[in-house]
Amino acid sequence: MPRPKPLSGFPEFLPEARIVEQHVLQQLQRTFELHGFASIETRAVEPLDRLNKGGEEIDKEVYVVRRLHAADDATDELGMHFDLTVPFARYVLENSGHLQFPFRRYQIQKVWRGERPQEGRYREFTQADIDIVGNGALADHHDVELPLVLLDALERLHRDLGLPPVLMRANNRRLAQGFYLGLEISDIAGVLRIVDKYDKIGPDSVRELLIAELGLSDAQAKSCTALAEISTADESFVDRVRALGVRNELLETGLEQLAAVVRAAAEQVPGRMVADLKIARGLDYYTGTVYETELVGYESLGSIASGGRYDALASDGRTTYPGVGISFGVTRTLVPLLAKGHLTASRPVPTCVLVAVESEETRGQAISVAGKLRKRGISAEVAPKADKFGKQIRYADRRSIPYVWFTSADAGGEVKDIRTGEQLPADPARWQPDDQDLHPRIISVWSERS
Amino acid sequence: MPRPKPLSGFPEFLPEARIVEQHVLQQLQRTFELHGFASIETRAVEPLDRLNKGGEEIDKEVYVVRRLHAADDATDELGMHFDLTVPFARYVLENSGHLQFPFRRYQIQKVWRGERPQEGRYREFTQADIDIVGNGALADHHDVELPLVLLDALERLHRDLGLPPVLMRANNRRLAQGFYLGLEISDIAGVLRIVDKYDKIGPDSVRELLIAELGLSDAQAKSCTALAEISTADESFVDRVRALGVRNELLETGLEQLAAVVRAAAEQVPGRMVADLKIARGLDYYTGTVYETELVGYESLGSIASGGRYDALASDGRTTYPGVGISFGVTRTLVPLLAKGHLTASRPVPTCVLVAVESEETRGQAISVAGKLRKRGISAEVAPKADKFGKQIRYADRRSIPYVWFTSADAGGEVKDIRTGEQLPADPARWQPDDQDLHPRIISVWSERS
Repeated sequence: MPRPKPLSGFPEFLPEARIVEQHVLQQLQRTFELHGFASIETRAVEPLDRLNKGGEEIDKEVYVVRRLHAADDATDELGMHFDLTVPFARYVLENSGHLQFPFRRYQIQKVWRGERPQEGRYREFTQADIDIVGNGALADHHDVELPLVLLDALERLHRDLGLPPVLMRANNRRLAQGFYLGLEISDIAGVLRIVDKYDKIGPDSVRELLIAELGLSDAQAKSCTALAEISTADESFVDRVRALGVRNELLETGLEQLAAVVRAAAEQVPGRMVADLKIARGLDYYTGTVYETELVGYESLGSIASGGRYDALASDGRTTYPGVGISFGVTRTLVPLLAKGHLTASRPVPTCVLVAVESEETRGQAISVAGKLRKRGISAEVAPKADKFGKQIRYADRRSIPYVWFTSADAGGEVKDIRTGEQLPADPARWQPDDQDLHPRIISVWSERS
Repeated sequence: MPRPKPLSGFPEFLPEARIVEQHVLQQLQRTFELHGFASIETRAVEPLDRLNKGGEEIDKEVYVVRRLHAADDATDELGMHFDLTVPFARYVLENSGHLQFPFRRYQIQKVWRGERPQEGRYREFTQADIDIVGNGALADHHDVELPLVLLDALERLHRDLGLPPVLMRANNRRLAQGFYLGLEISDIAGVLRIVDKYDKIGPDSVRELLIAELGLSDAQAKSCTALAEISTADESFVDRVRALGVRNELLETGLEQLAAVVRAAAEQVPGRMVADLKIARGLDYYTGTVYETELVGYESLGSIASGGRYDALASDGRTTYPGVGISFGVTRTLVPLLAKGHLTASRPVPTCVLVAVESEETRGQAISVAGKLRKRGISAEVAPKADKFGKQIRYADRRSIPYVWFTSADAGGEVKDIRTGEQLPADPARWQPDDQDLHPRIISVWSERS
């Protein structure tokens, strides 16, 4: 069998990188649970007709699944989920009688997209989603709460694991829509589509397109780009919008909602959120606040966490389920950080102590010591071979296992820190490694650029 | 949209059951790591030719994956993995230059089988595998070590989470093969195939088949069933086999290897392992020790954890990778325990404290208290609506959240245990819930039958 080659778009990690991913996933899980979100997992597949509702664009990305020996004329019925929202909507409808609303759930799973492989495009990747979904109605304050839950998680990843900090940008559908309506523009979707190109083509070209394609007046177009230029880390955006002289009730609602988000973020996670009124992506299908998130220093990755407020996650005809949610791209964030060496683990194995074996006859002593250490939560493995001790120490060293234990007939022994060479008598029922050696640590070489 | 129906063979859990599953997975992970196993995850798909090597039988179970808009004449190239061994073998070959051998890995992932749905057959299910793989060679003592790692994990699931205890049955390929060779039987595979029916058809029918189908003499057939009848919880099986008067070198090796497994198990996890010489399943492809595991009281589930020693997990022509591994069926074990109500969670949400909201104007007080609790690792959520307190208490009660916090302007407040009704002044920077209330607990109604 020749050596297999990786499949493009299906990233896999070596054990060291996997430890980084595990730490990140555990930290996300812990934070989501601290905020009262319950975990769910949905099956990997959905009926194709449920995946297809997104229209032509999404069709292309779906992987269809069928039994190898299905009859040739069998209809394809199942596809792999391409996000966690479609399965969640189906799960809520299917189980609504067994869920308590508002339902707060997190979901960390792989999703699949049948894309042509290219740099930064994955065909299998892990997403971490949080959503709060109401039954019939959902209060506005959840628009404020939800992004702060994710920012709390991302802040812990930054502070505890050394990931770069983030900057979340928020906008509001009502604000934009109200503003355009106040300008007597009716083609809201058209304006959003063009304003979405602001970062790429700049304000002058946006204005030109608004006039040429939508027939806006010069004044209308100018007002649109003036709105898009506003970005503030506090509530001052409200006054700047008002200074543009547009009056509309929906606009006022949007301003109030977005101000509440930015105000709470400034208090709870200072420096991580701005109101950014040129954000247009998502405003066409979200109905309230929208969120996008950049990884500082890795802006070219695009948004690593996006979401917003929607009026109908799902509906069964009688009941509509509105919600607010955000999806964090775990793979999208980690693969570049790992590839560039910005994050790594202190060792590729969980093992803290290698228990040396003097001879196969005394392997039992080593097994007993390892068992005692494990009972106390210390990961231990017994050397696979009764080699010379130097060779056993090299076994530990190659895996960055910090300690080697030498047993003695009286069930105790000596333990050597192979980094310092220090070797001391020790009792497996009492000895404790340095706190930072107990588990593999994440090492970050990232530093905030000055 | 009509209410969707579950897909047969694709089990999904409600939040309460998911909490049970999370506890089980975390306990498995913790135990595997205590024994120095590193986590890996492999992609969901493998090239079809790699999945197909198992032959016709396995073919049928594979789900083929293709892009929805692939050209009609495009060849199917990818299939979803149906176990974790095939992907692991490929991973070892692909990354051999980056791994340290013996390589100890665990892998907890979903697998898929395109089966016709029927009771107890899953088309998507979670497996937890551990393997130790050598580069060129792997010492025999790993045959002893590996099942004890899983038994350690299963014992913790029994002791800490209340799952039923298990009984692992071990046999050895060399023992069986040596015994049959010592009887001058050459069709080893034929004997194994028939002995495998022992439990279903009984010793008399097995003897008849051995004579009728394989042409064995009456004496040979009697010796075969005499071997199959031997099952002991200690090393006494060795004497009982020797008493059958068959002499063979391979048999002696097998007896020694199996005795070592049973001896170590009796010491480290007493009562959980027997040598059972009628185990034949797997003996055709494993090359040393084999393991099967029953859940006590749920024997009809069949083996929930099987594995063994293999001489070649993979080979790249130059190097062969022998190993020993075992696969625990997480879904297969949990679904029946959950369905019968033998396991449940103390609440369906992680939330320990609901912080009540007196009025929307004072929501900020509640947010501040919740934040202080979370900083200290206490899961808290803020009431979604400033309802009358009775209604907010019912919100907590419906979710079995044990505590409701009433804030006051001075940033402290009172906390009520809604089960006892006791309400006391408390400081969010110091208050601690009962240990057993901090996280959802697993409740087991299983009890060892007397």
